[in-house]
Amino acid sequence: MDEKTISQAVISRLPRYLRYLAELKDNNIERVSSSELSQIMNLTASQIRQDFNNFGGFGQQGYGYKVNYLYDEIAKILGLDKTHHLIIIGAGNLGQALANYMNFERRGFHFKGIFDSNEKLHGKKIRDMYVQPMEDLENFVKENDIDIAVLTIPKTSAVKVAEQLVNCGVKAFWNFAHVDLKVPKDIVVENVHLSDSLMKLSFKINSQDNDFEH
Amino acid sequence: MDEKTISQAVISRLPRYLRYLAELKDNNIERVSSSELSQIMNLTASQIRQDFNNFGGFGQQGYGYKVNYLYDEIAKILGLDKTHHLIIIGAGNLGQALANYMNFERRGFHFKGIFDSNEKLHGKKIRDMYVQPMEDLENFVKENDIDIAVLTIPKTSAVKVAEQLVNCGVKAFWNFAHVDLKVPKDIVVENVHLSDSLMKLSFKINSQDNDFEH
Repeated sequence: MDEKTISQAVISRLPRYLRYLAELKDNNIERVSSSELSQIMNLTASQIRQDFNNFGGFGQQGYGYKVNYLYDEIAKILGLDKTHHLIIIGAGNLGQALANYMNFERRGFHFKGIFDSNEKLHGKKIRDMYVQPMEDLENFVKENDIDIAVLTIPKTSAVKVAEQLVNCGVKAFWNFAHVDLKVPKDIVVENVHLSDSLMKLSFKINSQDNDFEH
Repeated sequence: MDEKTISQAVISRLPRYLRYLAELKDNNIERVSSSELSQIMNLTASQIRQDFNNFGGFGQQGYGYKVNYLYDEIAKILGLDKTHHLIIIGAGNLGQALANYMNFERRGFHFKGIFDSNEKLHGKKIRDMYVQPMEDLENFVKENDIDIAVLTIPKTSAVKVAEQLVNCGVKAFWNFAHVDLKVPKDIVVENVHLSDSLMKLSFKINSQDNDFEH
């Protein structure tokens, strides 16, 4: 299989496949056909077959897909079988929400610590972790083999902190700061720009009103 | 201009253009060329010109773009000049984070109320709003002309609450629940599936390790 040609669009759909397969698993459904999947996921069956063909198929003619096998294979492609060590920088509302709300461990991300520059937050307990000062960040990252940082700090400090973390060995960022990070090419960044998302919502409403987009 | 052909990719880039133009505005920069924009945004100049041509151009040959004008035009395309009334359903960590963290008003979204089914949260003050019980939701939506709902509730209740809100006149959802809403076609949905985003991060790290994707 030629994995180098997998498009961003296919990759974006993989987590959604996994979500639906998890539901089938929860309902003890063992097999699913591409047409059944297409109905519940609101995709065409041919789209689903095409997507899976990027990874060599997974199905057997006339049999459909084994739910458990398909789930495990997609999870593997997504790297969910790997283990990572993650910290959150920024213990404000958003950092606390992510610490409490995300099931990091389920995706193989072990939540190891949370940091903030605000003294008032130091020592506060968030999901069994005490908020630590930024002064302790570099040592902590090195000693705990941290490879992923979640950034929920203002854009004014995010670029600098990201640089600092790269120098300490952090390999990947889940970036909620409203800024594009400047990091070397081998560093992985997944951005969640909530303001951008809100503007897309605004655009869609506007398009609906104007019959602007179809 | 044929606005019906604007691709999702172009639309996705508009908020980012706006973000960079806002910075130029803040620095009192009046004009910018496509090649200057391309450098700071890490896009090609031809990409930028192509994107803007979707909306009829905006630039003058040899002059570049007027920053204020370009900002205002893109803001208009994004519908940021319109006013909407927004409520948040779910006053847990994420709902509170969004209420406190997002500058809704700047995008034309007037934050009008926050609701939760958890009695313990009723009456709690979040960004000058008291958390209200779900029983008051329908009347509130009708009386306050609410057109947008932010859903930060578990997926088990999100689908049902969305249906209820559509029946009361809500036209758009910013959906953080980990489920695809089932709403009529004329209802606008912008999903923020944080778990999906985290899995994309995992995929990127895995690809990096395996030299899987380029």
